[in-house]
Amino acid sequence: MDDRKLTPKEVRKLIREEKITGQTSGLCPGYAQANLLILPKDQAYDFLLFTQRNPRSCPILEVTDMGSRQLHYLAQDADVARDFPKYRVYRKGEMVGEYTSIDRFWQDNFVSFLIGCSFSFEAGLLEADVPVRQIEEHKNVPMYKTNIPCTPAGIFHGNMVVSMRPMTGEQAVKAACITGEMPKVHGAPVHIGDPSQIGIRDLQKPDFGEAVTVKEGELPVFWPCGVTPQNVVMEVKPELAITHAPGHMFISDIKNAALKY
Amino acid sequence: MDDRKLTPKEVRKLIREEKITGQTSGLCPGYAQANLLILPKDQAYDFLLFTQRNPRSCPILEVTDMGSRQLHYLAQDADVARDFPKYRVYRKGEMVGEYTSIDRFWQDNFVSFLIGCSFSFEAGLLEADVPVRQIEEHKNVPMYKTNIPCTPAGIFHGNMVVSMRPMTGEQAVKAACITGEMPKVHGAPVHIGDPSQIGIRDLQKPDFGEAVTVKEGELPVFWPCGVTPQNVVMEVKPELAITHAPGHMFISDIKNAALKY
Repeated sequence: MDDRKLTPKEVRKLIREEKITGQTSGLCPGYAQANLLILPKDQAYDFLLFTQRNPRSCPILEVTDMGSRQLHYLAQDADVARDFPKYRVYRKGEMVGEYTSIDRFWQDNFVSFLIGCSFSFEAGLLEADVPVRQIEEHKNVPMYKTNIPCTPAGIFHGNMVVSMRPMTGEQAVKAACITGEMPKVHGAPVHIGDPSQIGIRDLQKPDFGEAVTVKEGELPVFWPCGVTPQNVVMEVKPELAITHAPGHMFISDIKNAALKY
Repeated sequence: MDDRKLTPKEVRKLIREEKITGQTSGLCPGYAQANLLILPKDQAYDFLLFTQRNPRSCPILEVTDMGSRQLHYLAQDADVARDFPKYRVYRKGEMVGEYTSIDRFWQDNFVSFLIGCSFSFEAGLLEADVPVRQIEEHKNVPMYKTNIPCTPAGIFHGNMVVSMRPMTGEQAVKAACITGEMPKVHGAPVHIGDPSQIGIRDLQKPDFGEAVTVKEGELPVFWPCGVTPQNVVMEVKPELAITHAPGHMFISDIKNAALKY
């Protein structure tokens, strides 16, 4: 079975049945993927404000009504508690477990934030002959904590997390133009070139995901990443928060092209 | 004194001193202008969610911290309670007065939402030889209630308000391309042509602002408008809400070009 030929609806079904539990880069090219943060309603205003103030790392695609597991925009038949391949549960900033469903943890006061994901623009990069190394190498994308501060909002503060794709300088120009058109899935790169300028010590030791090969003559290109909220949660230590596992996204019915308008 | 040569900071000073109390279309071309809605914190989450779900009519430029009259992004020296030329105070959905300052009404639980304004893209239209009729005729832009429903969020629901600029079909194409690049100030038109299709009966009787001349061979072109929150407030009737008077905007230090990124 070639997963890449499946529709988003078919992939979500396989994910809900726990037949797909891995990372989702390269699945359903052309369709927007989404990161997740679930918080109790008490913290929802502060986080919604945080996303408004940090649209590059936290571009909101949809926010659910309190207690609802349904979506109305990204898909009509989704269950937020079961349709990500893998979730992480955080208590007081500590990850206490990874789960393929969070059905048992569900609370009536949960609000779910679905946040744009850079996997969404990879189909556009491939179309323009810009390589996407982690797809070539069948890995999860490398992600790094940076020293770039987010703008605080209420209780939330912390630094930006970035994803990295290596490419030549010419490809980086194309990649900036292509992704700059897609602000809802993180938009243009936040940095190109020297990792140390944004506080990354070793490209071969990502904080999330897996290291990929950087070839001779390639530059690392960094995009704001929807794992930023997890970094913030680890920093702020709210009583309870649930996220997706990095790289393990929700696959929506919305085409990336539709996110431009 | 030619107001159009003044910097945003100079214009805000004149507004604060109540030397400018009129509408702001055409002032400080190239700089973003902003609509206003102030609500007590209790309603702020529902409204912030409303803006997330209705980004075309309510593109958020900045949200203040509770109780603060200061801005951090749109300007460094602003006072939200005095730097709009005119405000409207609504109690239970009824406008109870228009004021050039809301200093006396200020409450520690106020949250201010600054929302993008279509005046911001008019400099770009003029540059491309697209006429902006209300500037030519020294009037406030005509604004209309439509039958286009906003997506509800919590207590907030209601229909979109639009602004209208008449132009030829060829100019409308240019206008769509130019404004489509500026989603933070309402983006592309929501309708071109027949007003009755969006529930507008008579172009010569706008619900807000003033009627302008529509010449032979011109089409009315409609953009989502930041007066939409006022329509929503009149519909939902919260205990207390404060807005700008339609057309009487905040002039920011942010160039429109900077809003693209």
